[in-house]
Amino acid sequence: MNSLAPKAEAGLPTIADIEAAAARLKGRAVRTPLLEAPLLNDALGGRLLVKPEMLQRSGSFKFRGAFNRLSLIPEAARGRGVVTYSSGNHAQGVALAARDLGMPATVIMPSDAPAIKVANTRAYGAEVIFYDRYSEVREEIGRKIAESRGATIVPPYDDPGVIAGQGTVGLEIAEQAAEKGAKLDAVLVCCGGGGLVSGTALAIADRLPGVPVYAVEPAGFDDTGRSLISGQRERNSPEARSICDALLAQTPGELTFALNARLLKGGLVVSDDEVRQAMAEAFRYLKVVVEPGGAVALAAALTGKLPVKGRTVAVVCSGGNVDADMFVAAIAAAK
Amino acid sequence: MNSLAPKAEAGLPTIADIEAAAARLKGRAVRTPLLEAPLLNDALGGRLLVKPEMLQRSGSFKFRGAFNRLSLIPEAARGRGVVTYSSGNHAQGVALAARDLGMPATVIMPSDAPAIKVANTRAYGAEVIFYDRYSEVREEIGRKIAESRGATIVPPYDDPGVIAGQGTVGLEIAEQAAEKGAKLDAVLVCCGGGGLVSGTALAIADRLPGVPVYAVEPAGFDDTGRSLISGQRERNSPEARSICDALLAQTPGELTFALNARLLKGGLVVSDDEVRQAMAEAFRYLKVVVEPGGAVALAAALTGKLPVKGRTVAVVCSGGNVDADMFVAAIAAAK
Repeated sequence: MNSLAPKAEAGLPTIADIEAAAARLKGRAVRTPLLEAPLLNDALGGRLLVKPEMLQRSGSFKFRGAFNRLSLIPEAARGRGVVTYSSGNHAQGVALAARDLGMPATVIMPSDAPAIKVANTRAYGAEVIFYDRYSEVREEIGRKIAESRGATIVPPYDDPGVIAGQGTVGLEIAEQAAEKGAKLDAVLVCCGGGGLVSGTALAIADRLPGVPVYAVEPAGFDDTGRSLISGQRERNSPEARSICDALLAQTPGELTFALNARLLKGGLVVSDDEVRQAMAEAFRYLKVVVEPGGAVALAAALTGKLPVKGRTVAVVCSGGNVDADMFVAAIAAAK
Repeated sequence: MNSLAPKAEAGLPTIADIEAAAARLKGRAVRTPLLEAPLLNDALGGRLLVKPEMLQRSGSFKFRGAFNRLSLIPEAARGRGVVTYSSGNHAQGVALAARDLGMPATVIMPSDAPAIKVANTRAYGAEVIFYDRYSEVREEIGRKIAESRGATIVPPYDDPGVIAGQGTVGLEIAEQAAEKGAKLDAVLVCCGGGGLVSGTALAIADRLPGVPVYAVEPAGFDDTGRSLISGQRERNSPEARSICDALLAQTPGELTFALNARLLKGGLVVSDDEVRQAMAEAFRYLKVVVEPGGAVALAAALTGKLPVKGRTVAVVCSGGNVDADMFVAAIAAAK
């Protein structure tokens, strides 16, 4: 990591970038509320504040980073469009942001992406190109297309403009917790490539210094958690599988890990069964639709991996783009 | 109705009561966002703004009216508690508001109320007493209990303080539509006894005069719609049944109808199948959990009973307290 540090430092977003993103997103993104459920608080013996990003435009937080990043593209380059690769939520975020800004968008998606994510990405007007998640390298496919068209590549997480946009989630959590008179003891954030958690941690470090922020990952995809311990970017086993389709990045991003290594308190891991149970609890107590990858931080709080008893903990529920079959199975299986 | 008119006029809430309720609820109730889904707008060819009251404390708008009404009880009378009767959402709203204010609460509920509503009402600390919806008169049972305990009766809708609390939904819709730069062409509101729609209509008439407000009811329970036409309070058939458990009032309230007769443009009716389909669309496009009775206004917009094409229409989704079985059946049955 040492050889990368100077380069990474130079390209890293700052709190000023997040504040600029917040100004760009004002009136364009939803300022999602910070919800809590009295009966869930009773059960936990503490206070759980939930940031429901499934209510965000495009059904996940990804619209924030996408819109901010696309807004940074010079006017002259916008007509040539954007290219991205995504398991589905970044795809929808980019497609909708591109539509808002009148830009063409092409998205490289895994062939096993949930049907709703593919359908919505197309419905927002983007061109979808499939690849095999386990045998092809999506970055290469994207690079070739972008070069042939003169389009701008918008990476799903390893980009300062994208990270800054996601960081507006952290700004809002700090503001809304203050409005509620709540003093946060910890913040738990879903983690795939690490864009959301790094941006959120950057905002929390500025607004609520000393409040620990944790990355939460699905079992088998705890590359960020392990990297935080080893100090270098670890990889997941190519054999690992999870229902958390939004969080299947193989290794932390370069920029996101540079931030996370400095800003995060640690990583937590939850199982697919714990995720399903969290989706059911969100249905029952919070009345929101959370997709598997969006439920990992909530699952960590509900299972006591980060104890909530006697404390106030904020969790991000990062998205709700889930097929009906998967959702039904989760709420039907709930205890 | 003529003989009732003077009495009703005298007891009717005004916009000042709604503004006072808004001040009392500030920081106690959730200011739910006004959501919209780009793909739903595309499908409708217009703009649909959704007020998601399932995100309200207690899982429905009912907390607003309950907290406002309980706040009006003199300090000296609070210790003797409150008594109410409710199919479930008002029960939960009163139970949670009473808990917030440190008051005991007793709720008369129908024996066929959804399990989640009974369980939550008890979990908020209220005593639950069951009655048979089709053979017993809940108002009589409530009156006897209240008299024996010196408790205050909090009716589910026919009360100026309750109506004023629900009216804060209308204030927020007007404010939030303005924040979005949206000029409303119509507002659709779920209607059982008429508390939510009358309060909302009162607020809209003040803030957005001329914008038509409609009551939406389930087939077989269109007492308000028929009463608006006949000019007198009509009753539903005792044989009528619907999955919209929250909207099964037999006849409009006295106060609510006095307001609605003056303020509403008309009534719309939707079938149970249309309600299930609307629940599924809310799952898919809005990522929220809507209960059957909470989905009737959305259903009216989605089925074109109030055309959205080329217009901007606000709908209230009034609650999300639905058992998993019912929800699963709705989203599984969706086309």
